[in-house]
Amino acid sequence: MGLHSHRRQTEKVGSAPGTLFDLPVQAPSRLWAVHYDAEDITEYPEVDLETAFQAITPDGVTWIHVQGEPDRQLLDQMGEIFGLHGLALEDVQSMVQRPKIDVYKEQVFAILNLPCWKGDEIQLEQFNLFIGAGYVLSIHAGDEDIVQVLRQRMLKSRTRLRTHGTDYLFYALMDLIIDQAFPLLESFGEEVEDLEEALLERPSRELLSNIYRQKRNLMLLRRQLWPTREVVNKLIRGIDYGDFFEPELQPYLQDLYDHTVHIMDLLETYRDIVASMLDVYLSSVSNRLNDIMRVLTMFSTTFIPLTFIVGVYGMNFGNNTQSPWAMPELRLYYGYPIVWAVMLLIAVGMFIFFRRKGWLGGVDRH
Amino acid sequence: MGLHSHRRQTEKVGSAPGTLFDLPVQAPSRLWAVHYDAEDITEYPEVDLETAFQAITPDGVTWIHVQGEPDRQLLDQMGEIFGLHGLALEDVQSMVQRPKIDVYKEQVFAILNLPCWKGDEIQLEQFNLFIGAGYVLSIHAGDEDIVQVLRQRMLKSRTRLRTHGTDYLFYALMDLIIDQAFPLLESFGEEVEDLEEALLERPSRELLSNIYRQKRNLMLLRRQLWPTREVVNKLIRGIDYGDFFEPELQPYLQDLYDHTVHIMDLLETYRDIVASMLDVYLSSVSNRLNDIMRVLTMFSTTFIPLTFIVGVYGMNFGNNTQSPWAMPELRLYYGYPIVWAVMLLIAVGMFIFFRRKGWLGGVDRH
Amino acid sequence: MGLHSHRRQTEKVGSAPGTLFDLPVQAPSRLWAVHYDAEDITEYPEVDLETAFQAITPDGVTWIHVQGEPDRQLLDQMGEIFGLHGLALEDVQSMVQRPKIDVYKEQVFAILNLPCWKGDEIQLEQFNLFIGAGYVLSIHAGDEDIVQVLRQRMLKSRTRLRTHGTDYLFYALMDLIIDQAFPLLESFGEEVEDLEEALLERPSRELLSNIYRQKRNLMLLRRQLWPTREVVNKLIRGIDYGDFFEPELQPYLQDLYDHTVHIMDLLETYRDIVASMLDVYLSSVSNRLNDIMRVLTMFSTTFIPLTFIVGVYGMNFGNNTQSPWAMPELRLYYGYPIVWAVMLLIAVGMFIFFRRKGWLGGVDRH
Amino acid sequence: MGLHSHRRQTEKVGSAPGTLFDLPVQAPSRLWAVHYDAEDITEYPEVDLETAFQAITPDGVTWIHVQGEPDRQLLDQMGEIFGLHGLALEDVQSMVQRPKIDVYKEQVFAILNLPCWKGDEIQLEQFNLFIGAGYVLSIHAGDEDIVQVLRQRMLKSRTRLRTHGTDYLFYALMDLIIDQAFPLLESFGEEVEDLEEALLERPSRELLSNIYRQKRNLMLLRRQLWPTREVVNKLIRGIDYGDFFEPELQPYLQDLYDHTVHIMDLLETYRDIVASMLDVYLSSVSNRLNDIMRVLTMFSTTFIPLTFIVGVYGMNFGNNTQSPWAMPELRLYYGYPIVWAVMLLIAVGMFIFFRRKGWLGGVDRH
Amino acid sequence: MGLHSHRRQTEKVGSAPGTLFDLPVQAPSRLWAVHYDAEDITEYPEVDLETAFQAITPDGVTWIHVQGEPDRQLLDQMGEIFGLHGLALEDVQSMVQRPKIDVYKEQVFAILNLPCWKGDEIQLEQFNLFIGAGYVLSIHAGDEDIVQVLRQRMLKSRTRLRTHGTDYLFYALMDLIIDQAFPLLESFGEEVEDLEEALLERPSRELLSNIYRQKRNLMLLRRQLWPTREVVNKLIRGIDYGDFFEPELQPYLQDLYDHTVHIMDLLETYRDIVASMLDVYLSSVSNRLNDIMRVLTMFSTTFIPLTFIVGVYGMNFGNNTQSPWAMPELRLYYGYPIVWAVMLLIAVGMFIFFRRKGWLGGVDRH
Repeated sequence: MGLHSHRRQTEKVGSAPGTLFDLPVQAPSRLWAVHYDAEDITEYPEVDLETAFQAITPDGVTWIHVQGEPDRQLLDQMGEIFGLHGLALEDVQSMVQRPKIDVYKEQVFAILNLPCWKGDEIQLEQFNLFIGAGYVLSIHAGDEDIVQVLRQRMLKSRTRLRTHGTDYLFYALMDLIIDQAFPLLESFGEEVEDLEEALLERPSRELLSNIYRQKRNLMLLRRQLWPTREVVNKLIRGIDYGDFFEPELQPYLQDLYDHTVHIMDLLETYRDIVASMLDVYLSSVSNRLNDIMRVLTMFSTTFIPLTFIVGVYGMNFGNNTQSPWAMPELRLYYGYPIVWAVMLLIAVGMFIFFRRKGWLGGVDRH
Repeated sequence: MGLHSHRRQTEKVGSAPGTLFDLPVQAPSRLWAVHYDAEDITEYPEVDLETAFQAITPDGVTWIHVQGEPDRQLLDQMGEIFGLHGLALEDVQSMVQRPKIDVYKEQVFAILNLPCWKGDEIQLEQFNLFIGAGYVLSIHAGDEDIVQVLRQRMLKSRTRLRTHGTDYLFYALMDLIIDQAFPLLESFGEEVEDLEEALLERPSRELLSNIYRQKRNLMLLRRQLWPTREVVNKLIRGIDYGDFFEPELQPYLQDLYDHTVHIMDLLETYRDIVASMLDVYLSSVSNRLNDIMRVLTMFSTTFIPLTFIVGVYGMNFGNNTQSPWAMPELRLYYGYPIVWAVMLLIAVGMFIFFRRKGWLGGVDRH
Repeated sequence: MGLHSHRRQTEKVGSAPGTLFDLPVQAPSRLWAVHYDAEDITEYPEVDLETAFQAITPDGVTWIHVQGEPDRQLLDQMGEIFGLHGLALEDVQSMVQRPKIDVYKEQVFAILNLPCWKGDEIQLEQFNLFIGAGYVLSIHAGDEDIVQVLRQRMLKSRTRLRTHGTDYLFYALMDLIIDQAFPLLESFGEEVEDLEEALLERPSRELLSNIYRQKRNLMLLRRQLWPTREVVNKLIRGIDYGDFFEPELQPYLQDLYDHTVHIMDLLETYRDIVASMLDVYLSSVSNRLNDIMRVLTMFSTTFIPLTFIVGVYGMNFGNNTQSPWAMPELRLYYGYPIVWAVMLLIAVGMFIFFRRKGWLGGVDRH
Repeated sequence: MGLHSHRRQTEKVGSAPGTLFDLPVQAPSRLWAVHYDAEDITEYPEVDLETAFQAITPDGVTWIHVQGEPDRQLLDQMGEIFGLHGLALEDVQSMVQRPKIDVYKEQVFAILNLPCWKGDEIQLEQFNLFIGAGYVLSIHAGDEDIVQVLRQRMLKSRTRLRTHGTDYLFYALMDLIIDQAFPLLESFGEEVEDLEEALLERPSRELLSNIYRQKRNLMLLRRQLWPTREVVNKLIRGIDYGDFFEPELQPYLQDLYDHTVHIMDLLETYRDIVASMLDVYLSSVSNRLNDIMRVLTMFSTTFIPLTFIVGVYGMNFGNNTQSPWAMPELRLYYGYPIVWAVMLLIAVGMFIFFRRKGWLGGVDRH
Repeated sequence: MGLHSHRRQTEKVGSAPGTLFDLPVQAPSRLWAVHYDAEDITEYPEVDLETAFQAITPDGVTWIHVQGEPDRQLLDQMGEIFGLHGLALEDVQSMVQRPKIDVYKEQVFAILNLPCWKGDEIQLEQFNLFIGAGYVLSIHAGDEDIVQVLRQRMLKSRTRLRTHGTDYLFYALMDLIIDQAFPLLESFGEEVEDLEEALLERPSRELLSNIYRQKRNLMLLRRQLWPTREVVNKLIRGIDYGDFFEPELQPYLQDLYDHTVHIMDLLETYRDIVASMLDVYLSSVSNRLNDIMRVLTMFSTTFIPLTFIVGVYGMNFGNNTQSPWAMPELRLYYGYPIVWAVMLLIAVGMFIFFRRKGWLGGVDRH
């Protein structure tokens, strides 16, 4: 999830609100529709907007889905045929919106963001939902056809979807999109646990950049998903939306709200964990380095008095053969082995001293 | 408490809301019931759901308890016989819900989480509570039969339980579950105090991982228990629940609310303490290491001028016997002892200097 | 203030709410009462509960005070004679409650916590207050008789207390308890200032543990006193309490509320100060250690080239008397003094270099 | 964005509220106006205030724009001719206001802050907006004529602007000013990404000061832009403003509100990222330095026993030719090569030891 | 601003609320009054309270000002003559109150805190304001006569003050006191900028204590000024105060509120900046020290192999003239210069190695 996602917003500064642009579209969008009621279901694969619009009946439900980024022509058509508000169409095109729900006279318009991994990064795909009299219009500016699970369920059997109205379909689509966060968070949880394990045992530089990367991903994800909760909450409280939503939907919306709260909980938990990992990382790296330095320093320190002693007997006072004070040790019969013995004693003594003080494995084994 | 607790949620993405699954169940669940009023009490050990349902009377209280994770068949039965909502049953099965309370037309449904130690980790067991006309249905997806203390009290004597209705039983069950947090927090408190003691005296690497582990446990526990408070609060404010709850219950619910607040207070306190322990740990480790390094460095530093001096008299200028300037010290009668004396003086001088500066025990004893 | 203060809560898990226990009581409680109106005042030192209850008149004020932890028998008596609610009595006995105010039909019940130093630790003593028709019942589970200042004032002269009703007495007792926090915070403030002074000048290990201890004390104190504010606020807003409280009390309660806010302000301020002290401690310790290490390292570094030089002239090339290249320096007439001069030059040069770079007192004197 | 932006506020302390001053103005302001309705449009370039005022008609829209800081005379004129409130004029002059919206009897007054880069720093220019009966008066205390894009759009074609009233023009101006934050944040995002890249690879001292500078810029920017959101929110909720604003404007204001929320989101995200960069910087610098120190220390440590050994054979015990114990190694035929071999073995041994322990590239490559 | 400012509060614990004390007063207070309406103005310099009270008329405005801390006698008089509430008078005397506004039957009472530098510390002087029927009574417990600017403006010309009632005078006094924070914050801003400059270039120990001191000052100042905002907000919302305040004052109060928000904004900004300075200080000090240590370590490391080499040729194997293996290098014609050459090569080689690795100026110049 890059930081430049607001570029389109930048390019439009100064233009009139509700203006559509001739933006290049990566791939042509595909359009299909389905019309159903409790008895019948008709599928319109690869349909044009005009035909789909004519399929709308007051009693049945017509679901029109656009897969891929719609081009300007299609958006203009939508504005004309369905009477969609210019600001809503502008939001569909800009593709950088926060999740939100807007109520217009003839339709309700919701934006959700669908998180998905693109390699190592998390990307958000905008999912637009319109509900109007007798129809639901969904626009998914992404490649993967994630709504087909719903369509297939609908075609295969007479599920609850078939016996409910447009509001239930609207809800079912929101439920589908919002629940996509669970597998994503599952994989997050696994990565966090991997990091945790590495943290205390093998603190490495890569670990640092991994922790940082996950922290950043979580920050961006949290800020994008947070408004989702508000969207669902607005729907629950939304008495104004009464024309399109039946009171029977309340328990389902409440359930959906619980899902969003659950997702936020998980995100917060991961964020807290990753945040405290950075602190522990610092401690852990510093513990490990300290171990190395301490051992090496103690090794060096042991040799310092020994090196001093051999230096003493490297002095040339012994050349003065007149003086009995001139390094008599050099003339001792057992001088050399005695010096070795003294040095050995010093080394062993220091080792014992270090051990007693608990400095050898001091910090980490006590 | 692992981070994967939402796995079941993940597997269900894309399925219709309110769908039950044929999930494997670890152990078969056991079902018993009890019917009582102020005069009589009848126990139905090992009963089936149908029989239990027929025991319900408008005046008495019927308590049906399921110990262990219910399988799909039992859940379907519950839906049919008691008219429980599909979303509620789905929540019972998923076992990863946050504490919540949902009001359906014919029953009120509450979920609580029962924290318990599994070895070194904290696990949460879901406890489900339904209250309907004349009955309370409790489902505890765990091994230990914690409600038997209530059943025994009920059977042994005519306690207040016997003279009150379903709402008091519902409350008594919530009180029992919520109060389970106290012994758990007690053991937490003890562990925190142990950590505190070790912190300033023996900062070790294990201590770091212990602090981190407790911090993580507290974070997860807090996020799971927090909604409990909201559940009780909702009950207190809940005028809609009037059909099942009498106004006389208010002081008891208030008391229950005080318990949840008390638990949250303890959790917050532990969290704050553990958080500041991490800071102090860093200081403490660094203090300890600094002590070692400082002593060793001072020891080494003392030897440095001495080693230089013995190096000086290891130079071979004395071989030049023509020059009176060629290391005349070597030819002094007391040259060697004088050098020793000078070196001793330097060592003592440096020791005094270090002591005066307060560097010997500098940082920690001032 | 230990972390185990909720032990009694733990022991009661699973028992019926509102149950009293035969808990051991440290010292027998003493009971006295006073009955007064604007004209008369009668004191009943060492009275029993029954007699005290009979002293209650509709017009006068009867104040009954229990000093010390009440035993079960006394609590049972209170329940019977005064009609106190079982949950309230349970709270009196448990002695680990957060400050709160509960409204029962026949009385209002408030709990306050009285902070006091026990040696080095802060302890909280529970102070219970009941107000009913014509009486105030106060129970202080502690040793020191802090309410006697009020009793003496009452007996000595016709203060405002005498001309007001039970509500003013209730208020005066709350005011007395809450204001006990001021001397405590005063001593806190003094200790914090001592810590501050030591912080920048003499950062020691004891200081670290002192800062940590104070931080912990403040955290616990804050969490215990925080609800006090809510208690007073509830009283101010409390239209339901109208039976026992006159509107004339409003300005006094507002004044009391200002006191609690003032106390919280002081606590927050100390907490912020102590929190930032930990950061500064780290900087300060590290500054001090760095000074030591830097000076020692520079001292050592100065000797390194000198030791190298004396090593050079300790080489035995000079033994080769055939070669004019074999250490001709050794054969120079002024060789030895020249070497000394060179070494002196190097030492002085390095000293000047260090000084110029600002490394000698670099970090701390710039 | 300096910290002294409140200097004018300082100089006015003690003066009467609503007082205007004879402040020096950097450059004379320019004034132009435009009057339009759905059919006609008349431009008044370089007009005086009196003439502009007379152009106002009840049906059309008159837009008067002041480019540059207005001097006192102009402000006084505005007060007289348009009946603007003294406090509003004082705010226009002070140029250090937070964004706000004030409702006076005859006009609504809004202040927005226009952020723009001045070299390396972010500056805020105050943009004042008055809406009254039939006119919009905008005052931009800056150099760059950013509203000309609007004027040109208006003159060129019959855009939506032309068919709407003063409220839409007011909205369009706010939209223009608020959207100026997008390109600014875009450039911020790019800089943050540059910092991120440098962070883990090349942590330098300049990077530290860059991170600090950006953090500070973000703090100041956030605090200045935050109230903008409140301004728009007030407009949306503002039933009192009904005289000047039509209900049809609601979706546009909602859209504007979404923009401000989006901007705040971006600011918060950048702030969080920059904040955690400081932590990672510390880790990264310390990792890098540790690598250097560890390698050098290991290099030194390897030489320590070798130097000891050569010191041993520099001792002069061998001069004592009487004793067979006097360094017999010196008299060995292969003594010298054996010593070299031993030293080589030690060096290789230590290298292998370090490698096994993972100390060579220990911290960063594991 | 010391931490003992609540000492008077401590001394009063246990006394009856609303009790005045015979506290020692540092300097006698001075009292003057002024009575004015749109036509006339009469000044009463050095007046007594009784006379001032008699100057009050229903139509005109009487302003009585007490400069300096009032003694008990004066306070008692105020209570009697003006009917001020005992709790208000107690607050005037205690001088440690948080800013607040209290509504009594016959007057409204406000407390503001006036911040001013006393040497290096920030002190707060309490400013008390009473508004009643026809009069404003202000008490400033400080030395400097800051209200004289208002009095002079009033006497000199017929300003807006003269044509408005008591409420406008009350507002003008609050405006004057609150705006005193601007010059103070200006000087704060300057000091913060000085600290910032020093931070990255010359991190010293004094800087640390300066940062800490400013942080502490800001914490205390913020906590004292924060309630000011609430005071003004209460006035704006205050429908109860209708007897003393006219609706025409609303825009002025709103303007005042904007000032307090502005002040809080500045305080928050400084606090955030100072907080992040502490982090950067740590980085900066550690960067600087690391530079020193790294250079010195590299210098030492270069000499280590050289010292080893000269040690090698200090060995006495060469004395063994029988063996050709006994240090033949010593007997080489160019042995000595070759050794020097080798050592020079090693030194240069290591220098190049360090440079390539970027270790020489590694951390700070890359």
